[in-house]
Amino acid sequence: MNIDMIEAAAERLAPVVRRTPLLSSPFLDEIAGRRVFVKPECLQHTGSFKFRGGWSAVSALPAEVRSRGVIAYSSGNHAQGVAYAAQKHGIPAVIIMPADAPRLKIENTRALGAEVVLYDRDTEDRDEIGDRIAAQRNLTLIKPFDDPQVIAGQGTTGLEIAVQAAELGIEDAEVIVPCGGGGLSSGIALSLEKHAPGFLVRTAEPEGFDDVARSLRAGAIQKNNASSGSICDAILTPAPGQLTFPILHRLAGPGLQVADDECLHAMALAFARLKIVIEPGGAVALAAALFRPEQIESDTVICVASGGNVDAAQFVKALESFPL
Amino acid sequence: MNIDMIEAAAERLAPVVRRTPLLSSPFLDEIAGRRVFVKPECLQHTGSFKFRGGWSAVSALPAEVRSRGVIAYSSGNHAQGVAYAAQKHGIPAVIIMPADAPRLKIENTRALGAEVVLYDRDTEDRDEIGDRIAAQRNLTLIKPFDDPQVIAGQGTTGLEIAVQAAELGIEDAEVIVPCGGGGLSSGIALSLEKHAPGFLVRTAEPEGFDDVARSLRAGAIQKNNASSGSICDAILTPAPGQLTFPILHRLAGPGLQVADDECLHAMALAFARLKIVIEPGGAVALAAALFRPEQIESDTVICVASGGNVDAAQFVKALESFPL
Repeated sequence: MNIDMIEAAAERLAPVVRRTPLLSSPFLDEIAGRRVFVKPECLQHTGSFKFRGGWSAVSALPAEVRSRGVIAYSSGNHAQGVAYAAQKHGIPAVIIMPADAPRLKIENTRALGAEVVLYDRDTEDRDEIGDRIAAQRNLTLIKPFDDPQVIAGQGTTGLEIAVQAAELGIEDAEVIVPCGGGGLSSGIALSLEKHAPGFLVRTAEPEGFDDVARSLRAGAIQKNNASSGSICDAILTPAPGQLTFPILHRLAGPGLQVADDECLHAMALAFARLKIVIEPGGAVALAAALFRPEQIESDTVICVASGGNVDAAQFVKALESFPL
Repeated sequence: MNIDMIEAAAERLAPVVRRTPLLSSPFLDEIAGRRVFVKPECLQHTGSFKFRGGWSAVSALPAEVRSRGVIAYSSGNHAQGVAYAAQKHGIPAVIIMPADAPRLKIENTRALGAEVVLYDRDTEDRDEIGDRIAAQRNLTLIKPFDDPQVIAGQGTTGLEIAVQAAELGIEDAEVIVPCGGGGLSSGIALSLEKHAPGFLVRTAEPEGFDDVARSLRAGAIQKNNASSGSICDAILTPAPGQLTFPILHRLAGPGLQVADDECLHAMALAFARLKIVIEPGGAVALAAALFRPEQIESDTVICVASGGNVDAAQFVKALESFPL
């Protein structure tokens, strides 16, 4: 896993990826006490950065392997990112989802051309089902984060940040990234190491699910105790990956944590000041910039808003809980 | 007023303007029955395209005139666009607003560095107050739409659309633009005339406030009968302008109208499918694309989402009225 793979992924993504802008607001700067920029990957195809990794992985396959199709396990953003990447390549995609996943997510994944296979979380083994289907049909598994081509795709976000920050004259910044398994943050860290060496990546996680921050402190992979209990469902991964963690350990600063309510508050401020829709897990980085300023050193922070796939009810709750 | 002025405005705007992306979703394409792209000027500085015209006008002034400051009449997006453009130039701005304007809009305009002068709509004459202050302090009036440099700034949106559409291989499209006084639509029309001659500009207005559509049919400026009564407050202008109408008459196709409920529906779909926040008046173009397909001919429509400055309560109403 290296920067060359990210640059190659950027070439493959160039004709299709949405180059999301860097957004800012003087009102957010005032709250944070420093300059705040937001990289809104919620505006990416399928509403999250996951399209980058999905496209990178699918497009990197040899043509004859790719044509047989791909398979992924996900109830969320990875499912839609892989489904859409496969659809745009004209190849089959099978997505294994829990039968109790939100109806809308299942419908959206199907509408993006994927075959959705549901399983019962209590009585069935997801991996067994996936392995069987993959073997029967010769499908290639696209992992959610611990895959070099997936990391390479997510890392293209960092190439864009480096170019856009340079255009704004920013030479020194902390880049805060929502972190589940670490695919996005490790990819961005590799991109910035070469293209914006004055920048420091910081991971952001929900309080109580700080496996990455603890792993960074311990110098070895630590696990979360729980797998649910935060509204930040998109980034509740058990532990950082075998590929992603060494990169983060080498390049990232101390991890940041925020409370669920701070995510809702950040969502409400992003609505009012940036006019974007962020999901709770996608708001942890902005929440850290706004509400944990004492843990940040640079005059400038760049926060990745990693996704926007939030139910209307949750979004309404954010707006009503935190009126301007 | 000509294309050279728009290209010159683009050069002045280049260091500061946000180049908003073109967004799309297969789910919106399916509703509309054709390809739909959205140019989200809600993501522009101050949450609307008005920053472009404000910056263009302020930056076009001779330095010694500009340094004395500018004045504008507005309770909405023009106020914030001019205030922020003035603040970033380091010059004073006076904004004349009705005393009963929403508190938040007054506070936002002040927070952007402007001096807000309130007047009583029932007992005071706005123009008299503005003329007096402008004369006393030698301020330059920045009109909301019927000013060549303002039209030039708004027209830069069209230059971006032409480049972005070419990147996507689009050669033929209707470009639907929310229309109040016509500054944005006429500027875009001039840009596309030169840079995307296969494109046709269409104006979109709320039902009952179709002054532009009637003017286009009549070949002469027609007025609205009412000045309030639609949720699309940002674009309820009495009539198209003396400068903007001849441009639209020469270049625009028949005007489109949509109902307020269709705007709310378009806002809810933009939330769910594009992850952007659009205000009612900014949603008329997307609403026309989605719900008036029989009045459109091209295989591709590009809708400008002109602004996102909507109260949380109104936005919640849209989401709750039109669940997915």
